[in-house]
Amino acid sequence: MPLGLPGSDVLAARHVRVRRALEASGLDALIVTTPANIRYLANHVGSAGTLIVTPSDIRLLVDFRYKEAVRSRQDSPAACPGLRITDVPESYDEALVAATMTLPGKAIGIEAGHLTVARQEWLIRTWQSRGAGIALRSTERFIERFRAVKDAAEVTVLRQAAQGLTAVAAQAMAAVRAGTAERDVAGVIETALRHAGYERPAFDTIVASGPNSALPHYRAGDRSLHTGDLVVLDFGGVLDGYCSDLTRTVSVGQPSPEALRLHAAVREAQAAAIDAVKPGTTTADIDAAARQVLVAHGLGEAFGHGTGHGLGLDVHEEPRVGKPRSDVAPVRLEPGMVFTIEPGAYLPGFGGVRIEDDVLVTEAGCEVLTSVPRDLRVCGEEASDTI
Amino acid sequence: MPLGLPGSDVLAARHVRVRRALEASGLDALIVTTPANIRYLANHVGSAGTLIVTPSDIRLLVDFRYKEAVRSRQDSPAACPGLRITDVPESYDEALVAATMTLPGKAIGIEAGHLTVARQEWLIRTWQSRGAGIALRSTERFIERFRAVKDAAEVTVLRQAAQGLTAVAAQAMAAVRAGTAERDVAGVIETALRHAGYERPAFDTIVASGPNSALPHYRAGDRSLHTGDLVVLDFGGVLDGYCSDLTRTVSVGQPSPEALRLHAAVREAQAAAIDAVKPGTTTADIDAAARQVLVAHGLGEAFGHGTGHGLGLDVHEEPRVGKPRSDVAPVRLEPGMVFTIEPGAYLPGFGGVRIEDDVLVTEAGCEVLTSVPRDLRVCGEEASDTI
Repeated sequence: MPLGLPGSDVLAARHVRVRRALEASGLDALIVTTPANIRYLANHVGSAGTLIVTPSDIRLLVDFRYKEAVRSRQDSPAACPGLRITDVPESYDEALVAATMTLPGKAIGIEAGHLTVARQEWLIRTWQSRGAGIALRSTERFIERFRAVKDAAEVTVLRQAAQGLTAVAAQAMAAVRAGTAERDVAGVIETALRHAGYERPAFDTIVASGPNSALPHYRAGDRSLHTGDLVVLDFGGVLDGYCSDLTRTVSVGQPSPEALRLHAAVREAQAAAIDAVKPGTTTADIDAAARQVLVAHGLGEAFGHGTGHGLGLDVHEEPRVGKPRSDVAPVRLEPGMVFTIEPGAYLPGFGGVRIEDDVLVTEAGCEVLTSVPRDLRVCGEEASDTI
Repeated sequence: MPLGLPGSDVLAARHVRVRRALEASGLDALIVTTPANIRYLANHVGSAGTLIVTPSDIRLLVDFRYKEAVRSRQDSPAACPGLRITDVPESYDEALVAATMTLPGKAIGIEAGHLTVARQEWLIRTWQSRGAGIALRSTERFIERFRAVKDAAEVTVLRQAAQGLTAVAAQAMAAVRAGTAERDVAGVIETALRHAGYERPAFDTIVASGPNSALPHYRAGDRSLHTGDLVVLDFGGVLDGYCSDLTRTVSVGQPSPEALRLHAAVREAQAAAIDAVKPGTTTADIDAAARQVLVAHGLGEAFGHGTGHGLGLDVHEEPRVGKPRSDVAPVRLEPGMVFTIEPGAYLPGFGGVRIEDDVLVTEAGCEVLTSVPRDLRVCGEEASDTI
C-alpha cells in the first residue's frame, strides 16, 4: 500500500517556491528546524536534523543515527536535489553555528514557531562571541504556508490514507458491544490500522463511552461499554508520513431519544460545513456553517472546539478551521487544501457526539476523502443496523 | 494494573520544592508550558494547558476540552492542592497575558527550553502594549531538575512499567521468524503492550532486521526477516504516564560468528556500564564504562550514540548519559534517578546490536528495573534456544 517518498522532481518544485519566498523576504538563508518541514523539503525522515536553505544551496546537518539512511536515499529516486550532507559529531547547534559562519549572506531566518527561546539565546550568544555578524530574523509559517496547499503527490497519499480508514471503521464498530472495555476497542482499532498498512496511528486513539464521550479530549480507559452508551471513536493512521483522521459516534444497543437528537444535529452541522467548502470561502465561514446549525438546535454552548484542522505531514496543521480570531488573518480556501470537518456536541454527564471527515478543496468545491456512512450505527446487537 | 495519578500529598511536596527554588532564584512567578511539567505539578493530563506558579498561588489555564476532566479530578484524591482554574475561551496566550497582568510581582520566569521564540515575542509585545512592566526571565531545567530524581510514587510506577515488558518481549521474540515482515512483528509488540495494560507505546516501536539493524533510528518497514538476520527489537509502553524502554537483539536462526562477536561485545559493554552505576558517579563515567569496552573490541567507531537517557513522564528526559560535553556541567548520579543503559554497535551493510535496560540509582548502587535475559536469543527455529 505505501507509495514511498516523493521523487526528486517534486522536491525541486518545492525548492523553487521556497527560494522565491526567500528572495521576496530579503533573507540570505533559512534555518529549518521543524521535522515535518525538513521532510517536506529534503525527504529526511527523523526526529533530528537541521536544514539550511539558501538561494543556491541546501544543506542537511545530521547525526550518526541517520547518516546511512540519508546517504542511501540520495542514491534513490527520492534524492533531494542538490543536497549537501554535513555530519553532526556532537551538538546540532554547534554544527549549525559552524555551518552558518561561512554563509555569504548574513540575514538568516529562523522558524520562530518551532525554535525555542533557549536555542535562540544560545545561537545569538555563540555567534556574537565568534564575531559572526549574523542578523537573525524571526519567520513564521515560512514553509507551512506552502504545505497547506498539497501538491499532486501529497493528494494521492492523503486520499489513500483516508480511504484506508473504511476497513478500520468496520472493525472498530464490530468490536463495540456491552461489556467490552474502551481500551480493548482502541486495541482493535490500532491492530486494524497496522493491518490496513498504516505505519502507525496518527494520534492516540480515542474511544470515549457514555459520560466519557462528553469529554472531547478523553482517550480510552478501563470503562466497560454499557447498553445505551454513545461511543465516540476517533482514530487515524499515518501512511507514507501523511495523516488521516476520522470520527464516528455509535450507540451500544438502541439509542435514547436524546442521543438521536444530538446525533442528528451534529450530522446536520457537519453536512452544512461540508457543503460550504469551495475555493475563496474562508475557514471561518466553514466553522460558522457548522456552528449556526448547532446554535439553532440549542447546542451552541455544547460545541466548544473548532470545526477542523489541516491534515498532512502533521495531524494538526494549517489551515485551522475555527471561529475568526482578532490576531489571525482570515484564511481563504484554495484547491489542494486538505482538512478535517468535525463538529461535535457534548452534554456533561450525559455524553457527546462528534462526526469527522477529511476533505480536499477542489476547483469545483470539495472532495470528501473519507468514506464511512454517517448514520448513527447501532452496535453490539445481534443484527447490526443503522438509524 | 494502572495505579492512577499521584495523590495530593505527593503534589504538595513537589510544590514545596519548586517554591523554594522560585524564592532562591528571585522569581515572582514561573510560567509552565511544558505538558509533562504541568502534569508533574498539577496532575493535568493533556496536550494543552498553561500553569502559573507563584510563592502563594498555583493557577491552571485550560480550555473547554479539558475543563470537565480538571474539575472532576479536583474532587478526587489526586486533586492539585490550592489549584485555581481559569477558563481559556480562545487563545492561551491572551489568557496568559490577562492572568499575569494582575500578579503582584513582575519578575516572571518562562521555560526557555520549551517556549518558542514566536510565543515569547508575542507575549513581550502584548505586555508592553498594555504597560504591564513585566521583566521576563529565561529559565532552563527549572522543573526538569526535580523530575530527574523520582519520588517514591514515581519509582513504584516506573518499576511496574519496566516489569511489564517481560511478557511483551516474550511475545515479540515468539513472532520473530523468517518470512515475517518487520511491521508485523511491530504489530505483535504493540498489541502485547496494550494487553499488558500500557496506555500506549512510549515511542514508535523499532523492529530493524538484517542491514536495517545497522540504522540506529530505523523504525519498522516492509522488509521480511531472513534466516541469519540480526533483529533489533526496541519498544516500550506508557503506564500512568510513565515510560519504559527495552531493547533486545535476536537472531533469526543460527547467528554468524560475526553476529556472535558483535553481540558479546555489546553485552559486555552494557554490563560494565550497569556495574558502574552508583550515587556520586557522573553520567559521563557510565558512558565511558560502556564505550571503553567497545573501543577495546575495535568497535569504538561502531558506537555512535550515547549510552542512555532518563526515563519518566518523557521517554527522553534527564539525565542524559553520554560523552562529557564542554557546554554542559557534569551530572552526578543521585538515588532516585532512572535511566536507560543501551550501548550498541552498528556495522553498515551487515547489521547491528543494541541491548537496553532501565535502571534506578539506589543508595547502594543500582536496581535494574527491566528483567529479560540478555542472551542472544535464537528465534524462529523449532526449539527456541539461547546462546
